[in-house]
Amino acid sequence: MIVTPQTHHFAEPLPLASGASVAGYDLTYETYGTLNADRSNAVLVCHALNASHHVAGRYAGQPKSEGWWDNMIGPGKPVDTDRFFVIGVNNLGSCFGSTGPMHPNPATGEPYGADFPVVTVEDWVAAQARLLDALGIQTLAAVMGGSLGGMQALSWTLQYPDRVRHAVVIASAPNLNAENIAFNEVARRAIVTDPDFHGGHFYRHGVVPKRGLRIARMIGHITYLSDDVMNAKFGRHLRDALATGAYRYSTQDVEFEIESYLRYQGDKFSDYFDANTYLLITRALDYFDPARAHGGNLTAALAKASARFLLVSFTTDWRFSPRRSREVVKALLDNRRDVAYAEIDAPHGHDAFLLDDPRYIGVVREYFRQVGA
Amino acid sequence: MIVTPQTHHFAEPLPLASGASVAGYDLTYETYGTLNADRSNAVLVCHALNASHHVAGRYAGQPKSEGWWDNMIGPGKPVDTDRFFVIGVNNLGSCFGSTGPMHPNPATGEPYGADFPVVTVEDWVAAQARLLDALGIQTLAAVMGGSLGGMQALSWTLQYPDRVRHAVVIASAPNLNAENIAFNEVARRAIVTDPDFHGGHFYRHGVVPKRGLRIARMIGHITYLSDDVMNAKFGRHLRDALATGAYRYSTQDVEFEIESYLRYQGDKFSDYFDANTYLLITRALDYFDPARAHGGNLTAALAKASARFLLVSFTTDWRFSPRRSREVVKALLDNRRDVAYAEIDAPHGHDAFLLDDPRYIGVVREYFRQVGA
Repeated sequence: MIVTPQTHHFAEPLPLASGASVAGYDLTYETYGTLNADRSNAVLVCHALNASHHVAGRYAGQPKSEGWWDNMIGPGKPVDTDRFFVIGVNNLGSCFGSTGPMHPNPATGEPYGADFPVVTVEDWVAAQARLLDALGIQTLAAVMGGSLGGMQALSWTLQYPDRVRHAVVIASAPNLNAENIAFNEVARRAIVTDPDFHGGHFYRHGVVPKRGLRIARMIGHITYLSDDVMNAKFGRHLRDALATGAYRYSTQDVEFEIESYLRYQGDKFSDYFDANTYLLITRALDYFDPARAHGGNLTAALAKASARFLLVSFTTDWRFSPRRSREVVKALLDNRRDVAYAEIDAPHGHDAFLLDDPRYIGVVREYFRQVGA
Repeated sequence: MIVTPQTHHFAEPLPLASGASVAGYDLTYETYGTLNADRSNAVLVCHALNASHHVAGRYAGQPKSEGWWDNMIGPGKPVDTDRFFVIGVNNLGSCFGSTGPMHPNPATGEPYGADFPVVTVEDWVAAQARLLDALGIQTLAAVMGGSLGGMQALSWTLQYPDRVRHAVVIASAPNLNAENIAFNEVARRAIVTDPDFHGGHFYRHGVVPKRGLRIARMIGHITYLSDDVMNAKFGRHLRDALATGAYRYSTQDVEFEIESYLRYQGDKFSDYFDANTYLLITRALDYFDPARAHGGNLTAALAKASARFLLVSFTTDWRFSPRRSREVVKALLDNRRDVAYAEIDAPHGHDAFLLDDPRYIGVVREYFRQVGA
């Protein structure tokens, strides 16, 4: 499946949860499959922290350019693009195409940098709804996402209950807990205290706060993997044991394979990810909390939802543990909503939502079989 | 109990596991209680990452200067200084008194900085044994420690099996797993990539890599606390909600209480802890692995131990989980050693070993009742 990203320009400002607004902006998106005659087979896929509109397929001439959920979405796949018209959209504030901090602030002509307004999950969903308007789609057959993408799917059912028939919420949570916020905060502090951050206006200095981005990504990677899979993959293996098998006895050189892996992931990430985007997206995660307006009562918050739901969690996911998905399931059941829930006994931690566990893939496939097009 | 630190100078170099050696060096220590006539009532207390020889009591004129294990050690306390002669010793490489990276390297006259040799748990234990020699103590009634201190206690029973009658190993592990090493590595990278680190020779530049130390400490704090206690203590509480109860919508200001707590802990730590010491101590943690010389067989490694053991773990400790303590218990039982083990159902995570859980304190008290003086 060869795909091409598209961009839609929105001239009208988008009012934000914060009270600010974004002036004219672009959303970059991709579509897979064909919209049917009554425009009833659209599936919107929402992305998580480190992803984009490029959900499935490949770019022409780039054989290794598979989208991030290419195992899930495509012809004959669980979300079958022979039946569904799937839309991947890049969120506002991202660094992968849609308007974000490195784009010019119309007020100054300079890159927004740290002046890009704080955006929330609700703001992203509102922007996605405008894109659907532009595409002439009133109602989604389904909205789906994993992790932060699952929060967007959940928020769709609350902001636009009449426009969503099914919501698929994978490896997600009804809000971040204190530990989740703590990890985000450490990552943000690493970025903003990097001298190359320059208060978020590093573009004009021709530098990138790579030190901070590396640390942020290393922390992220630890939280994406389970203890079990880390021990299985890396354990205490030395990267490059001396001939004698002895340690190198160095505090700064790489000694263990896990160190090498994390440094590599950090380096790679710091080459392409925008520091301001990292701040914005982690803050959107922190702020998401639909129960907040209902005194913390999630059941009351989810009363608005009328969609049918599939929730999936993974036993070894300690970032968004099954307990958090069960909170959503319980609140939906309290409201007598139609909910399917699968708790997959997978070793991979939070990352499992991107992987090929056959039980997980099978659950999504079966669920989409009964999503009417 | 008013206490006074003492220092012993060792003129003879200490050979290290790495093959290097430390030239003449000082160890700072404190003692509580009285050594009995047959010198049989000594208890050595080993410290963890962020601690020192100041284990119990207070300094004259400093009412808030309690030692870090003052709830455990003192007259009438579980480790009763009316019965035992307790020794707290600061490890080599520390920044609290014993010779460390900020002290002059005799080879250059300048501070060691990053040239301070890498020290291991085994090296620390060897240095502690020399201190006992100097104090005229052949055999310890007990050696005890929590976390990294527990590793030293365990190592004592392997390096000097004839000099230890009891070992008390609390909230510890037979080695670090991949996730533990990963967190250490992120902390170290934050420190060494701080431009103020200057390759470990920041002293001569008159600066301190505070940015890196702050990040290291924030990461540490997250791993010391359980998810449960973080949610109970901080949850999603805003530090300073606007009058309307609304979010501030900022990526850099403190919004949640947990952020404020972590920043405060990071700031405080960066004011007093030495960056090179942080690298050395986390590396000593990484390297500790007594089973390594036995092909990973912990039972074979612990065959040397002849002490009696008390191990304690805490259910919500995800840094050194009960599973890790049980590995040690099993390996000791495989060797038909005398082992008591308590798994305390405490909500506080790794930090529990420093806290006042009455069941935990009671277990240690009962154990020490039967440690003959």
